[in-house]
Amino acid sequence: MTVAAPVRPVSSKLFDDLRARFGERFSTAAAVREHHGKDASYHAVAPPDAVVYAHSTEEVAATVRLCAAAKVPVIPFGTGTSLEGHIAAVQGGVCIDLSQMTRILRVSTDDLDCTVEAGVTRKQLNQHLRDSGLFFPVDPGADASLGGMAATRASGTNAVRYGTMRENVLALTVVLADGRVIRTAHRARKSAAGYDLTRLFVGSEGTLGVIAEVTLRLYGIPEAMRSAVCAFPSIEAAVATVVATIQAGVPVARIELLDAVQMDAVNRYAKLEYAVAPTLFFEFHGSAKGVDEQVETVRDFAADNGGGEFRWAASTEDRNKLWQARHDAYYACKALRSGAEVWATDVCVPISRLPECIAETAKDLAAAKVVAPIVGHVGDGNFHLCFVLDPANPAEFDEAKRLNARMVERALAMDGTCTGEHGIGLGKTEFLIAEHGEAVAVMRAVKRALDPDNIMNPGKILRMN
Amino acid sequence: MTVAAPVRPVSSKLFDDLRARFGERFSTAAAVREHHGKDASYHAVAPPDAVVYAHSTEEVAATVRLCAAAKVPVIPFGTGTSLEGHIAAVQGGVCIDLSQMTRILRVSTDDLDCTVEAGVTRKQLNQHLRDSGLFFPVDPGADASLGGMAATRASGTNAVRYGTMRENVLALTVVLADGRVIRTAHRARKSAAGYDLTRLFVGSEGTLGVIAEVTLRLYGIPEAMRSAVCAFPSIEAAVATVVATIQAGVPVARIELLDAVQMDAVNRYAKLEYAVAPTLFFEFHGSAKGVDEQVETVRDFAADNGGGEFRWAASTEDRNKLWQARHDAYYACKALRSGAEVWATDVCVPISRLPECIAETAKDLAAAKVVAPIVGHVGDGNFHLCFVLDPANPAEFDEAKRLNARMVERALAMDGTCTGEHGIGLGKTEFLIAEHGEAVAVMRAVKRALDPDNIMNPGKILRMN
Repeated sequence: MTVAAPVRPVSSKLFDDLRARFGERFSTAAAVREHHGKDASYHAVAPPDAVVYAHSTEEVAATVRLCAAAKVPVIPFGTGTSLEGHIAAVQGGVCIDLSQMTRILRVSTDDLDCTVEAGVTRKQLNQHLRDSGLFFPVDPGADASLGGMAATRASGTNAVRYGTMRENVLALTVVLADGRVIRTAHRARKSAAGYDLTRLFVGSEGTLGVIAEVTLRLYGIPEAMRSAVCAFPSIEAAVATVVATIQAGVPVARIELLDAVQMDAVNRYAKLEYAVAPTLFFEFHGSAKGVDEQVETVRDFAADNGGGEFRWAASTEDRNKLWQARHDAYYACKALRSGAEVWATDVCVPISRLPECIAETAKDLAAAKVVAPIVGHVGDGNFHLCFVLDPANPAEFDEAKRLNARMVERALAMDGTCTGEHGIGLGKTEFLIAEHGEAVAVMRAVKRALDPDNIMNPGKILRMN
Repeated sequence: MTVAAPVRPVSSKLFDDLRARFGERFSTAAAVREHHGKDASYHAVAPPDAVVYAHSTEEVAATVRLCAAAKVPVIPFGTGTSLEGHIAAVQGGVCIDLSQMTRILRVSTDDLDCTVEAGVTRKQLNQHLRDSGLFFPVDPGADASLGGMAATRASGTNAVRYGTMRENVLALTVVLADGRVIRTAHRARKSAAGYDLTRLFVGSEGTLGVIAEVTLRLYGIPEAMRSAVCAFPSIEAAVATVVATIQAGVPVARIELLDAVQMDAVNRYAKLEYAVAPTLFFEFHGSAKGVDEQVETVRDFAADNGGGEFRWAASTEDRNKLWQARHDAYYACKALRSGAEVWATDVCVPISRLPECIAETAKDLAAAKVVAPIVGHVGDGNFHLCFVLDPANPAEFDEAKRLNARMVERALAMDGTCTGEHGIGLGKTEFLIAEHGEAVAVMRAVKRALDPDNIMNPGKILRMN
């Protein structure tokens, strides 16, 4: 499924210059290019013409300067775990692999913040913080790089309590399309000084610049943390429990829905024995007394909706195991069917519309010709379908495409968004237009202003040509 | 102190067209223009050439379209309570007064959000919400319009717990520089769909477009709320209590510092009898037990630092009185000296640097030739000086300018910002450059892309000429 030759010719001078500068950290090997042309999505491989492994912001800037002079596309690459073809080199170009930029530049326990190079992953950061009493909460399923997470405005299971990358990035160091390096903000918790460039680059998917360093908020590890799993007689009952919890303002740290198909997949993949039923995974953070209060309130809501017993993860190890099972949902789906391709898609709606949105989507799936577990960060109104597809069967992809479009249209009609956390990438450019209308013209104007030659990850978010 | 004639000539055709459309809601009367040319800051009056009172987004758009055709500046006006000359018509032009756009378009108690026209003030909104069990927390000192608060990225006493306008605006309806109307986002709590236009317009001070409608997050009124006042032997002791509280992750709703000079001013203005000493104002929100826990923790920190007894505001009425006293700090300063002009300025630094930043600023003030109480949202690392000046004495303004510059330079050197919440306006354009360096070029590029003729509130944030 490799796509055709690059749209823009790459001069041999550019490659000579990059090779001279980066030596063995510059590669045009087919295997390296293929690896960098495919993310965790269903999108076809689109290999870059070459890959540079950068070791510093200055090396990123030098690469961008050379590419800019040659008007050759630049595609930033973290861990390749994006879900909408974000790193596919659809117009060829040079991939900048930031995965070796793994320095943790600074941690301030007093200010509850840190600065890391873009290649540090969320687990590496939390490993580093282990003895500090602090943690970083944003946790997409994959162990993604923090630069990539900023670039895609990633989120995860803790967002309902701690926010997404939008709320948790304090500042970025960004290499612009001409190689200039800017820092978007200082470290103050709030600022009214000019345009919010931090938030402009968060979620820009490499189309406005390459994120090279990230300054993040950190949080004290709560005094008490308790996790539980609770099965429900129906998806509706589970979702009603979520809506009641959010509307009551319970500061739940995590509240995740897995439907019966997904629970079955998780049981098989992680060798667990949960009930094969619509299930909520909970986590509560706070003081010991505060957590008790939260648990009491939420248990009442669950009971009102016919929920079963709360099955508690007592030890830290059990808690980690429980959440690993949740994070492995994608891989569990993949393992459902040998050789399967997984197409993961997500939408997000106002919480009052969530029951209806999920119910109608579930009805679609019941009548569908493909399997797609429902799993979601339902406290945010956000849920996913993971289509489990036969890569050799285009009819299955067509069916997934139809169901995805129906789900997105439904979410938009409910004043929701076509993606809560996966981003636009290649796959949702048309839905972006459906969602934002004339506002997309403003996005285009910003893109043209900051990247007049359209070399920064072209073809993603916006089609400029 | 009226400034000279407008830089750009206004055609009589534009005025004829506006008069034809708006009738008595179009005015060129001197008193109306003067009123719209001066905010609550020390900046000179700069009246617009005319004022339009808009009643709808479409009327705002029609006005902008006419001004755009004539290349005449447009200055949005809410309540005129900005603090850096944001509404001064320094290049003349047409002021669009949005204060009559006061419809509350929608409240969703289920989704904890609402949409209002830009002219609704924060107190009007909370009055409207009174019986719903919800409230909107962002509270700058003045009863500002929510459109103006979004435009200046306003904040206030609750930001330490609930965030600023950055976190609390879900979507905006914006009239662009050519009169097109966009909505920046749908109502989902999170989205990864394209550039974050909401955050781009929040804090853009009318320089990229006119905010006509605002969709806001709301919060359930907490089960328990308790407020207290506690005096300290020194500013250092008070600030140390704040730093300990924040570092311990206590979810305090408000934690405000007033120095002895400010307490004296507040006592006189509000006829209160607090100790004339560095003082913290606290508020705790949560469940009854949760609030008790928070109080216990913070009282220990205060005691460790030599704080006195907590003086509690028992009733809602007492609590409101306490916070009104805090919100009136600006007016209390003004009342310290008959006929005084108040120059309010603010900075924000990482919390670990706050003690040093305030201590050095206090040392400056002790040796200064002007009076300037210190008051601050110290939980965010944010504090203010309110210079109380004789408008007839330029030497006092020079002294304030010197002290302000020293405070800003100090904050920037500590990786802080030149303004935590007042904005750049006219007064801090040079400090913006000092803070952001090359990133200001990115802001300029965005400004040029969205407002090529520089008609949107020209001269604010960025000097484009």
